[in-house]
Amino acid sequence: MLSFDILAEDGLARRGRLGLTHGMVETPVFMPVGTYGSVKGVAPASLEAMGAEIILGNTFHLWLRPGLDVLARFGGLHRFEAWPRPILTDSGGFQVWSLGANAKVSELGVAFQSPVNGDKLLLTPEVSMQIQHVLGSDIVMQFDECTAYEVEGRITGEAEARRSMEMSLRWAGRSRAEFARLENPNALFGIVQGGMFENLREESAAALAELDLPGYAIGGVSVGEPKEAMQRIVAHTPHRLPAAKPRYLMGVGTPEDLLDGVAAGVDMFDCVMPTRNARNGHLFTRFGDLRIRNARYKTDEQPLDPSCACPTCARFSRAYLHHLDRCGEMLGPMLMSVHNLHFYVDLMRRIRAAIEAGALAGFAAAFRADRARGI
Amino acid sequence: MLSFDILAEDGLARRGRLGLTHGMVETPVFMPVGTYGSVKGVAPASLEAMGAEIILGNTFHLWLRPGLDVLARFGGLHRFEAWPRPILTDSGGFQVWSLGANAKVSELGVAFQSPVNGDKLLLTPEVSMQIQHVLGSDIVMQFDECTAYEVEGRITGEAEARRSMEMSLRWAGRSRAEFARLENPNALFGIVQGGMFENLREESAAALAELDLPGYAIGGVSVGEPKEAMQRIVAHTPHRLPAAKPRYLMGVGTPEDLLDGVAAGVDMFDCVMPTRNARNGHLFTRFGDLRIRNARYKTDEQPLDPSCACPTCARFSRAYLHHLDRCGEMLGPMLMSVHNLHFYVDLMRRIRAAIEAGALAGFAAAFRADRARGI
Repeated sequence: MLSFDILAEDGLARRGRLGLTHGMVETPVFMPVGTYGSVKGVAPASLEAMGAEIILGNTFHLWLRPGLDVLARFGGLHRFEAWPRPILTDSGGFQVWSLGANAKVSELGVAFQSPVNGDKLLLTPEVSMQIQHVLGSDIVMQFDECTAYEVEGRITGEAEARRSMEMSLRWAGRSRAEFARLENPNALFGIVQGGMFENLREESAAALAELDLPGYAIGGVSVGEPKEAMQRIVAHTPHRLPAAKPRYLMGVGTPEDLLDGVAAGVDMFDCVMPTRNARNGHLFTRFGDLRIRNARYKTDEQPLDPSCACPTCARFSRAYLHHLDRCGEMLGPMLMSVHNLHFYVDLMRRIRAAIEAGALAGFAAAFRADRARGI
Repeated sequence: MLSFDILAEDGLARRGRLGLTHGMVETPVFMPVGTYGSVKGVAPASLEAMGAEIILGNTFHLWLRPGLDVLARFGGLHRFEAWPRPILTDSGGFQVWSLGANAKVSELGVAFQSPVNGDKLLLTPEVSMQIQHVLGSDIVMQFDECTAYEVEGRITGEAEARRSMEMSLRWAGRSRAEFARLENPNALFGIVQGGMFENLREESAAALAELDLPGYAIGGVSVGEPKEAMQRIVAHTPHRLPAAKPRYLMGVGTPEDLLDGVAAGVDMFDCVMPTRNARNGHLFTRFGDLRIRNARYKTDEQPLDPSCACPTCARFSRAYLHHLDRCGEMLGPMLMSVHNLHFYVDLMRRIRAAIEAGALAGFAAAFRADRARGI
């Protein structure tokens, strides 16, 4: 089940509303990442309080732990992780790709040894659909091969990117067939690949559009390529995807990247950056990024971001967070993860309001100028 | 400033109310431990929600990090750690004792090298009072020497325990003098020492009573002695302390130990056990202790404790907590620390009600029988 209504447009940017099995999602949206069924360091109640409407789960990791027997017993991931709102799960393609030499890719799928217990496993488009069916994900991602930007220092050429993109297309067809056979009532998204080659991206997008899937993602970016290459693809591909369907830019990125993506017609984003950076003491603020480990914060009585309405900024000082980080206290990453996620969720809220007002360009310019000012 | 009113008695047990600079505390009370200015893995808002009324801080650790310059700038620990309710700080004696051979004890105080940066430091009764004055602790503990139960396999004899206890008494006098000189408006507690020797404990208690301090603690238990020895001292000492003053049993213990202490006339407890055990997957429940790592919980849909009203039990299953622990997800210790602390805080709430009803013995027997049943 999926509906998608476009409520307003501003250039290529769209203000939309996704209807999913477990509820509505206002777009453009940022989706916090809960790889193992938990957004690292953030309780579901905190996610609800900050207004997160949809989170990610990871097909590959959840397949290995806790495993399908446990997830089936709970009737899916929602009840298992106690998150009643929508969930999107990636297909496992990216994680298998991360295994590198430990994974053998063939037309059938990907063979690899479980990093948990050494079991020999085979992940195929069919298996990925079966797992995501058990997970009960509101949005199921097709199984794809994430085309590497470079392998052992050699940048992927067009022939190799084409071979990979074409296999992902065949896997999209197999994913769709298995999704239908399972009578999965949720929504299956296709994934555009094609590396850094615009012509391949266009071929991929056109072929996927023929499958008439309820949504489309742009994959294979944020995989080690130069920033300029990513920006080139983000400017190129989104608006070439079917206008009536939601568009999802996978694994991106900084707050500025999100602005780029929205302006190019993207509706959905996910990234580990807010949570991972928080654990490393890297905070997002209105006036630029703040490294809490810097000694200048040792006595700083201000909140991380005086303009921020999150529970961390409402109660705690930079000096205290600096201290927690220095002492290795768990409360540090807890409080800083809430702040960074709130920053992202709030940015999307403001972006939605700007699109509704037809004022995205002005908002984006002011946001970038503030961030560039430095803290 | 300190007031202490005894509202009800039941045998040796007392139901009281402590008035401190930053608010009232209902006793008997359990005080969560926030060594470095943070109760590990638990946000202050969660402590407030579960009804924690007073928490601990650690003079020794906070002296080293963030240091007095930072704490003074914030006007003390309350504002620094964003905890507006009462705080008790231990004097540093126990932590210096933990340094073992790296600390040199003399009549003056304890000389040691900072484990943080190698600086040569000297902690004396006067310095401890000065630090706790900067911290602004509602309850300041005298500087004492914690008498070891055994050193290098040799159990501490009476002569050695006497020497140590008598020095702690002299340090109590010096602590009181410095506390007065600083015109500290808060409350200074004395600490009874004397090892496992009742006669020494009585001498210590009598001499401290002459100092007419606003409260008294029993130190030097839970330092590696057999359980029977601890129980012997807990049964012996508390009711021999001045009846009108609050009595604090330091560093104890299991839920059953708390019942023992209350029945012996103790009003205040602290212990790292609920938080430390939670991080190790050891949970307290009505029907006994639960080890979440046990494979039997892999598919268990029940909450940790079906009779528990904490936010963890309201939302999450044992299977999910087992999974988080197995995956090393930070949310696991976060949720389990809240549960264990809630268990302790709730136990004290029920103990207070039982004393008011004159029904402590029956409550304790039922509680122990439930816990012994096993889960």
